[in-house]
Amino acid sequence: MTVTITAFEQSPDRGRGLARDMRVRWALEEVGQPYDVHLLSFAAMKKQAHLSLHPFGQIPTYEDGDLVLFESGAIVLHIAEQHAGLLPNEVGARARAIMWMFAAVGTVEPPIVERSAAYLMERDKPWYAERLPMLDGRVCAQLDRLSRHLGDAEWLDGAFSAGDLMMVHVLRRLESSGLLQDYPNLVAYIARGEARPAYKQAFADQLAVFEAASAGK
Amino acid sequence: MTVTITAFEQSPDRGRGLARDMRVRWALEEVGQPYDVHLLSFAAMKKQAHLSLHPFGQIPTYEDGDLVLFESGAIVLHIAEQHAGLLPNEVGARARAIMWMFAAVGTVEPPIVERSAAYLMERDKPWYAERLPMLDGRVCAQLDRLSRHLGDAEWLDGAFSAGDLMMVHVLRRLESSGLLQDYPNLVAYIARGEARPAYKQAFADQLAVFEAASAGK
Repeated sequence: MTVTITAFEQSPDRGRGLARDMRVRWALEEVGQPYDVHLLSFAAMKKQAHLSLHPFGQIPTYEDGDLVLFESGAIVLHIAEQHAGLLPNEVGARARAIMWMFAAVGTVEPPIVERSAAYLMERDKPWYAERLPMLDGRVCAQLDRLSRHLGDAEWLDGAFSAGDLMMVHVLRRLESSGLLQDYPNLVAYIARGEARPAYKQAFADQLAVFEAASAGK
Repeated sequence: MTVTITAFEQSPDRGRGLARDMRVRWALEEVGQPYDVHLLSFAAMKKQAHLSLHPFGQIPTYEDGDLVLFESGAIVLHIAEQHAGLLPNEVGARARAIMWMFAAVGTVEPPIVERSAAYLMERDKPWYAERLPMLDGRVCAQLDRLSRHLGDAEWLDGAFSAGDLMMVHVLRRLESSGLLQDYPNLVAYIARGEARPAYKQAFADQLAVFEAASAGK
């Protein structure tokens, strides 16, 4: 039974690998699990066929036989539990790796998404310029603390784990923001993630989808 | 070895049980695990002694011998893995319960927190009134989908799980918002969570902290 995931037919980031299917692709590559991809238009994501898999109408989903999952964090954790390589075996280290997955999606990502959403939806509003320093400040409050925790370490807690996979991908959304330049250790951390062969393969595969869609226009 | 968690010395919600220690207290009560509580002032939360446990300077933390965890979702999941009662045994059902934990903190909670943050920090700003319908709309987009998924079911996926525990607590933050009134099934879902003996005990315990702090003033 081959795993099937869903992804954007036309990536809104133009193939930069910022959509959340990238996390699942990367995890599947790390554990050496082949997968199929079902591409969805924005219209198809809101139709009943997809909503029956993902009630919030987003990507990615993960299908393995009868099991259907959504939420990239939950999918990556499920993959990490089914295959070796993304979670330590020791109970405490394993719990801490999962803790960093929750920190990525629950603590670090929300102010990053909020800043992006304001740019997308409010940049023509008269208040945008006055709000932007506050939005940047909320992002940087988390980056300050994450950077201080990471220090000179290679990964967040010992060896590379699903926690790093999630955190690196969350941070990547800031690559064009200018906000990372004050955190050279976070820039190096992201680069370490991007240098992994599994990351490179996943990135190439999602880029190929975008390039094929663009060529077909 | 007794588990120790951290909580606010002076709950900013005046004992309404909206702080995230409530999730951990509830989970510990569900599994019948006693625990100690270390209360922290806002000043103490930002000092090095606490930052060494929680790099983001928040509550709750969870200490069990050498293991230190933060992030309420990760703590609840760890408790659920150590004790029976909060996660199904079957692999697929277990993955779906964890999926709802991630959905609670990663998909449903962020727009709720954003709406609260705007009220706390921007309600005197000239743009607040114009932005509020947009903030409400983002919350309700998720409530619409969650309500449709839940339908007439008692819990999100079969029996009560850690996914319901997290989701009920996330939704409780909307109790004074007026936004839940259009979703009677979500109101009933929250009420089912609040009716659980473990919830009631956890709620009483956090309320007692607030009342003791108030009496001591």
